[in-house]
Amino acid sequence: MKNRIEKIQTYLKEQQIDFAFITNPDNVFYFSGFHSDPHERLLGVAIFQNREPFIICPKMEVPDAKASGWPYDAIGHADTDNPWTILAKEIQSRTSEVATIAIEKGHLTVERYEALLSFFPKARFVSLDQTINELRVIKDNVELEKLRKAAELADYAIEVGVKAIKEGMTELEIVQIIESAIKEKGYSMSFETTVLSGPKAASPHGTPGNRKIQKGDFVLFDLGVIYEGYCSDITRTVAFGEISDEQRKIYETVKKSNEQSIQAVKPGVRCMELDKISRDIIAQEGYGEFYTHRLGHGLGISIHEFPSVTGTNELELKPGMVFTIEPGIYKPDVAGVRIEDDVVVTEDGVEVLTKYPKELIILH
Amino acid sequence: MKNRIEKIQTYLKEQQIDFAFITNPDNVFYFSGFHSDPHERLLGVAIFQNREPFIICPKMEVPDAKASGWPYDAIGHADTDNPWTILAKEIQSRTSEVATIAIEKGHLTVERYEALLSFFPKARFVSLDQTINELRVIKDNVELEKLRKAAELADYAIEVGVKAIKEGMTELEIVQIIESAIKEKGYSMSFETTVLSGPKAASPHGTPGNRKIQKGDFVLFDLGVIYEGYCSDITRTVAFGEISDEQRKIYETVKKSNEQSIQAVKPGVRCMELDKISRDIIAQEGYGEFYTHRLGHGLGISIHEFPSVTGTNELELKPGMVFTIEPGIYKPDVAGVRIEDDVVVTEDGVEVLTKYPKELIILH
Repeated sequence: MKNRIEKIQTYLKEQQIDFAFITNPDNVFYFSGFHSDPHERLLGVAIFQNREPFIICPKMEVPDAKASGWPYDAIGHADTDNPWTILAKEIQSRTSEVATIAIEKGHLTVERYEALLSFFPKARFVSLDQTINELRVIKDNVELEKLRKAAELADYAIEVGVKAIKEGMTELEIVQIIESAIKEKGYSMSFETTVLSGPKAASPHGTPGNRKIQKGDFVLFDLGVIYEGYCSDITRTVAFGEISDEQRKIYETVKKSNEQSIQAVKPGVRCMELDKISRDIIAQEGYGEFYTHRLGHGLGISIHEFPSVTGTNELELKPGMVFTIEPGIYKPDVAGVRIEDDVVVTEDGVEVLTKYPKELIILH
Repeated sequence: MKNRIEKIQTYLKEQQIDFAFITNPDNVFYFSGFHSDPHERLLGVAIFQNREPFIICPKMEVPDAKASGWPYDAIGHADTDNPWTILAKEIQSRTSEVATIAIEKGHLTVERYEALLSFFPKARFVSLDQTINELRVIKDNVELEKLRKAAELADYAIEVGVKAIKEGMTELEIVQIIESAIKEKGYSMSFETTVLSGPKAASPHGTPGNRKIQKGDFVLFDLGVIYEGYCSDITRTVAFGEISDEQRKIYETVKKSNEQSIQAVKPGVRCMELDKISRDIIAQEGYGEFYTHRLGHGLGISIHEFPSVTGTNELELKPGMVFTIEPGIYKPDVAGVRIEDDVVVTEDGVEVLTKYPKELIILH
């Protein structure tokens, strides 16, 4: 954590910024090791060029912040306090004149920005988002090890889900079986587990319900597990009973798209090139219009983080970047298939973290 | 929904605001009936004085938006589009000159605000938060019925949890049993279920782990269930095996604080008065310093919404308001006890939605 704070301090000095105020809970965790979801209450880390940083958090969470190993001040505010007054006082005691403040423009609300502005009315506000993104996007070995563990748990969750499929079982019953298996191991999911069957699988963002699984269905699993604060995200689609030739063709097309995109991952390749590879394969088979989303997204402390792997992102891959590869085809009344893996860019290629098989599984 | 949009239209006309742009997903649901969590992608409802409103959402969610019953336009944006260009074009086609824009300052990020500003550089931005809060805070009969059902499910979840307690069982195992029972009924939790035991119950925001429940523990359950988009939130604390006299005193003090606060609920009473009643009872018994949070929070589509029931909130209660009453005492190494109910302000008093008993339960 210390190393990460020093990088922000260096940036503040270089850019002549008086302090950075970080409030995105995932970023607070990244810089402090303190994981908290304060809902509407103020939680933040203030970092200065030369003075020690501090955490501001709800009073009742001060012991948790200390217990997380944060070696600096943790300032509490009660529900009856104005937390901004407390924050401003702490800042003013550490910096004399404030000319420039770095904030997360992609996270801080206008209301909070105006609150800060009221205490520092002459300050210029600059965005810290890109700087934090560039730090967080390269995972160190400790982070990679956690991501490997998270992916292993995701593989296990898919295995549990596939084994649970039986005729007449509902989507939500399978969700429950998967989540129980993960909870039993002492872990939690990184987002609401998705199990979609038959026509519903063709809605890329559908929610599981009481539909009973029946023969001829594709069953789509999209889930992830958190391991020590780091998320995995996997999608597999399996067939239940015999499927049509077109359903099979759709499956094989998505699989090819997933595999060839993964094979192309290495330092120096641009995000947009990966997206294009995945999209061309699907378009060649005539399903271009049914692949309605980007290829993938960054993954780490947040389930969706920088970078976004789209057809317009020119970002070059570097070793240590972790993201998803998740092409899909959603053809209404025919099939919804997505295959998603988590990958790390290595020095000379790619490491695939999720290892559950991708050959078409037909359950009987 | 139509009625709600008309109220915003009236407000826009009265305040001479050209349009409102609403992006908080819970508010989008309130005004459109379309429930979606678009993560970092743009989702919003634009409402005009006289023209029809529209939804802007990720392209792949347009069919879901239509299926939700939204009778107006649903404009999709692909991951490769700049959604702000699309939004601005749609707005400009409906309004000639834009002088004033209403946004949710408590939700919109600075980055999104700056994106809007770049298309409407001369516009004044006003906050819509208070107006939406005042609409949402009074629940109609349809909403109340959903909240009753959500509370009934929360009672059931507590019942399942209390029955599951056995010596040597871990907190996470009990979480899993509770969540499975709710999933089996086809519902999901309104937040991560909390089960804390022994010393951990004295951390008001702790997370469940692999600690095994043992004799002499208090076990604290904090959970909620979503029923058709509406949340419940309940906390109960039960004893496992014999507890000390001081633990018992703490329990009875919290119970009295909860009950007397509830009895005081009726139209015209201020939030701060309720908080004071709860706090005085706890302070009289010498535990004031261990009651480290507000009395409660509003409840509805969001698990935490307006109003905040604190010692400084002067808001007067009105019929139809729904909030939690959740005093607690967290004395390190002695006990952590919280008792939380969901209440509705009625014409002449209060209706308590959560009905699980509050008499001290000692399990053997």
